[in-house]
Amino acid sequence: MSSSLVSSEPSSPDSPSDKKHFEPDELPIHATSETPNRRLVHPNWWWKYRQTIREIAAEFTGVMILIIFGTGVVCQVILSSNPGVAPTPKGEYLSISFGWAVGTALGVWVCLGISGGHINPAITIAFATWRGFPWRKVPGYIFGQLMGGVVGAALVYADYFHAIDIYEGGRGVRTLKTASLFSTYALDYMTNVSCFFSEFFATAILVIVILATTDKGNGPPPPGLLPLVLFILILGLGACLGMETGYAVNPARDLGPRLLTSMVGYGSAVYTFRNQYWLWCPILAPILGAQAGAMFYDVLLFNGRESIVNKP
Amino acid sequence: MSSSLVSSEPSSPDSPSDKKHFEPDELPIHATSETPNRRLVHPNWWWKYRQTIREIAAEFTGVMILIIFGTGVVCQVILSSNPGVAPTPKGEYLSISFGWAVGTALGVWVCLGISGGHINPAITIAFATWRGFPWRKVPGYIFGQLMGGVVGAALVYADYFHAIDIYEGGRGVRTLKTASLFSTYALDYMTNVSCFFSEFFATAILVIVILATTDKGNGPPPPGLLPLVLFILILGLGACLGMETGYAVNPARDLGPRLLTSMVGYGSAVYTFRNQYWLWCPILAPILGAQAGAMFYDVLLFNGRESIVNKP
Amino acid sequence: MSSSLVSSEPSSPDSPSDKKHFEPDELPIHATSETPNRRLVHPNWWWKYRQTIREIAAEFTGVMILIIFGTGVVCQVILSSNPGVAPTPKGEYLSISFGWAVGTALGVWVCLGISGGHINPAITIAFATWRGFPWRKVPGYIFGQLMGGVVGAALVYADYFHAIDIYEGGRGVRTLKTASLFSTYALDYMTNVSCFFSEFFATAILVIVILATTDKGNGPPPPGLLPLVLFILILGLGACLGMETGYAVNPARDLGPRLLTSMVGYGSAVYTFRNQYWLWCPILAPILGAQAGAMFYDVLLFNGRESIVNKP
Amino acid sequence: MSSSLVSSEPSSPDSPSDKKHFEPDELPIHATSETPNRRLVHPNWWWKYRQTIREIAAEFTGVMILIIFGTGVVCQVILSSNPGVAPTPKGEYLSISFGWAVGTALGVWVCLGISGGHINPAITIAFATWRGFPWRKVPGYIFGQLMGGVVGAALVYADYFHAIDIYEGGRGVRTLKTASLFSTYALDYMTNVSCFFSEFFATAILVIVILATTDKGNGPPPPGLLPLVLFILILGLGACLGMETGYAVNPARDLGPRLLTSMVGYGSAVYTFRNQYWLWCPILAPILGAQAGAMFYDVLLFNGRESIVNKP
Repeated sequence: MSSSLVSSEPSSPDSPSDKKHFEPDELPIHATSETPNRRLVHPNWWWKYRQTIREIAAEFTGVMILIIFGTGVVCQVILSSNPGVAPTPKGEYLSISFGWAVGTALGVWVCLGISGGHINPAITIAFATWRGFPWRKVPGYIFGQLMGGVVGAALVYADYFHAIDIYEGGRGVRTLKTASLFSTYALDYMTNVSCFFSEFFATAILVIVILATTDKGNGPPPPGLLPLVLFILILGLGACLGMETGYAVNPARDLGPRLLTSMVGYGSAVYTFRNQYWLWCPILAPILGAQAGAMFYDVLLFNGRESIVNKP
Repeated sequence: MSSSLVSSEPSSPDSPSDKKHFEPDELPIHATSETPNRRLVHPNWWWKYRQTIREIAAEFTGVMILIIFGTGVVCQVILSSNPGVAPTPKGEYLSISFGWAVGTALGVWVCLGISGGHINPAITIAFATWRGFPWRKVPGYIFGQLMGGVVGAALVYADYFHAIDIYEGGRGVRTLKTASLFSTYALDYMTNVSCFFSEFFATAILVIVILATTDKGNGPPPPGLLPLVLFILILGLGACLGMETGYAVNPARDLGPRLLTSMVGYGSAVYTFRNQYWLWCPILAPILGAQAGAMFYDVLLFNGRESIVNKP
Repeated sequence: MSSSLVSSEPSSPDSPSDKKHFEPDELPIHATSETPNRRLVHPNWWWKYRQTIREIAAEFTGVMILIIFGTGVVCQVILSSNPGVAPTPKGEYLSISFGWAVGTALGVWVCLGISGGHINPAITIAFATWRGFPWRKVPGYIFGQLMGGVVGAALVYADYFHAIDIYEGGRGVRTLKTASLFSTYALDYMTNVSCFFSEFFATAILVIVILATTDKGNGPPPPGLLPLVLFILILGLGACLGMETGYAVNPARDLGPRLLTSMVGYGSAVYTFRNQYWLWCPILAPILGAQAGAMFYDVLLFNGRESIVNKP
Repeated sequence: MSSSLVSSEPSSPDSPSDKKHFEPDELPIHATSETPNRRLVHPNWWWKYRQTIREIAAEFTGVMILIIFGTGVVCQVILSSNPGVAPTPKGEYLSISFGWAVGTALGVWVCLGISGGHINPAITIAFATWRGFPWRKVPGYIFGQLMGGVVGAALVYADYFHAIDIYEGGRGVRTLKTASLFSTYALDYMTNVSCFFSEFFATAILVIVILATTDKGNGPPPPGLLPLVLFILILGLGACLGMETGYAVNPARDLGPRLLTSMVGYGSAVYTFRNQYWLWCPILAPILGAQAGAMFYDVLLFNGRESIVNKP
């Protein structure tokens, strides 16, 4: 019954990753009653255009959700610490860890069955390298993810710019003090090597856990509940390893909002911080860390055939 | 065994949304042993009256639970910050986000299988517009939801009025200071446009996530666990986007308690705040935001046939 | 493989509530390979005695776990607020809500499949009244629950008595200040009527949610995940309605530890507080509140045949 | 589709605990299409070496993840309380309970289907004693677990040593003040008996809950979601019973990091604290407590045949 939160018609099999999400009892119904006419006709002119961009749109939406909750919680917690913004603080540091966890879980739920729920270029590249995800799709995925980061940050900025004005102490004043609400900046005493290591390390852990909990040979949770694992994982990354470089662990999560900040008045300062910090720390380190994590898991534990290390 | 938390007889198929909740192995038993005599006889005189109002009663109960936990946590956290009310504060801001998350999850669990678990007029209207939920049912649902909001707030008010007296500094003194425990009031510096945007925006996100996690084509969680998604979602809305306007995102959640406050001594002040704020911000903004969110999801991602955009 | 966290042989069908916990694919195996010889022989002399007390032992264990985590978290948070006990506070108020939620979820998990996971005399009596739970079992269940409360509190007391000495400011000094770590005592300004209402109200909500989420006609979660609902529910009761009377909502949770305190040196003060407070507030109010909640749910929403209101 | 978070090829049946993790509908596909050629050929030279160490490698990885999140959260929360390390504290005590809960849940998820997800020598020994886990595997498991603890702590130390320098007030200065970030040290006023009891007690509870929630006769959660129980369990142990001795409850969790600290400059002080505290409190107490917990559960509640007490 479409009036129910728990029902809605199965989507078209055009999106290849659908079938794996149907429980055994649903498949027959799906196959018999709906698939046929589905396969034959496009319901309308928009449908067929939509199908061609559907996976990219899904990644876009997923990252948008991730960034809305993630940068949203940072804005709320940090800005509300200023009495001019809110009578009392509206969150603690722990809230920030929860906020990013919420964003990640919901972001993946939003696109899980359509695009596979990467919402992270480092993951997409790792899947292409180690799990046979088609390379031709990678550019589109990354583009969608990056745009999702820009749009998500723009919406949060639009939501909080009054508070940012108050926090910055003047209308339109924009400094790194509030740019750090959207993108990651390392603590002062951290050396560049340590910054790189911190992001590399955190992303490797991220990927090891993701590969383990999606490995059918390793007692994974039901697919539809995988985002619960990510909720716990990101909560942990924030609470346990987030202090030093802000756990970007996701190039789109960092570059998207950074592009937005550079557009809305923070200027080039967001790029000149610690010469090209934006490039080597929150972008290159996660990409390489994801590769290291995937290699670690596949070399030691993964038995699946699609991995390089298990090719005959 | 009916002595067990985990057992109780399946309910009558009169309520159409039941069947979707049975696991494959239960359906046969249900179909063979119980449905027949069920269909034939009403067990008693009350039964048949009850069936006619059951969905509305379910929405009533769901919103009542939502409001009891939601306004309850606000009362406990804010009131206990006054040393006269409690020796030490009984919660932090994060508690409030958790409280509303608990209320939403439990509220939906309470009516999920009977009414579909909307507990939000904006959702009901969005389902009617985009998912073929019958419009004739909409008024009854909204009435039940609104009444649930009034009754839930009344119970919490009855539970906390001693503490409210102490907090207000005098028996029977009632000002917006404590009216804001039950309904939402925006921060001072927020412009009307920003208030509207904040509610519109948060509700659109809410609906996008709900439509995605109930879309069979999008790897949804098992129906009985959908409230876990809502727990995470509302936790996030409170922690990430709740500062400015109190994330009503639900007309019944705001108007119900507001009606109650106007009845128990807060007077007309609750309606005159920022001329008709109560109407355009926590009621119209969520309804329109829900439409925008549904349109976004259906235009970009949804493949189901019941949506307007997928009609041939 | 019995070496795995996720495996262990199915238990004997002697305990009637087992079968409902097997997934469809397990039942056949169970029925064919194991049940027969099971039914025929007792593996040893202890087995057959054990089976007769197994349900009571399960309730005992469940409440013991509940009280260990519940009173444990109160001890840790309150005692550690004293610098002599711990260098820094070891928890916030929110921790207490989480602690009781953990205790409830784990307590139910521990006995769910054996005794039905009541761990609360008010629930047991409500199930007997409204769900056909056999009355002859009620006394044994309540006895087991009460003993579990005493033993759980004793273990926590043994774990924390050094810290209690420091907190009380002298070895063996015992006052209500620390008795309240184990049992509930209302805030001063609360009238007796309000205290009674607070417990009655909270327990009614508890029962409505439990009946709804165990009602097969109402989209319940998988049985093995029901404790997640209780985790959320008790987290909410503590965070939203726990301030005034300490949300006993469970006679065994309050009387068991109270008996223990009276035994270990707190004397009769724990019973004389607000003449017989211990009896009418944390015992009678929950029992009656559970009845009210069950009546509310069954009259309005429940379609199952075992309920009084649905008898022809 | 291997590009999806929710898919990856089932692993080889070489690892005996795989099969129990497949849902009914997957088994046939698995059995027919993949197992055969799997069984016959090793895909490459590394594969067959890998299979021989796969369970140990899984336990290694599981404990490594546990320690990375667990000691990581302690480092972040304690170190960030120093203004020189971070402008504002990056966590509260509750964060520490969550961090260990995250580590445990993810650590078990990482190796659940390969090694059974013990990640704790006390559990491994208890399973060998009470659940027929082969004793010949015990040394390998414990070795893997211990090495995981050393490596995990080393990675966290490498991530945080700059902050440790600042916190210690000088480069290379290492005292028990920061050694306690990695291993457990009891509060001053605790007697040795109380320390032993605290660890013994907490581990017994740990094992009772694990045995109950993996007992097919006791309504367990779906295997892939068992780590959610452990998340709740460890959250509770930290919040409710963690104050006095730091809830090691796991010899590898304590000794692994302790070895690392003794190697990186903390010297022998980590062993001389309270003569051999490191041995009798965080190692012997958990091992014995696990035995006591398993005996309690099996004597009172467990019906499975593999337990000693149920042998004919």
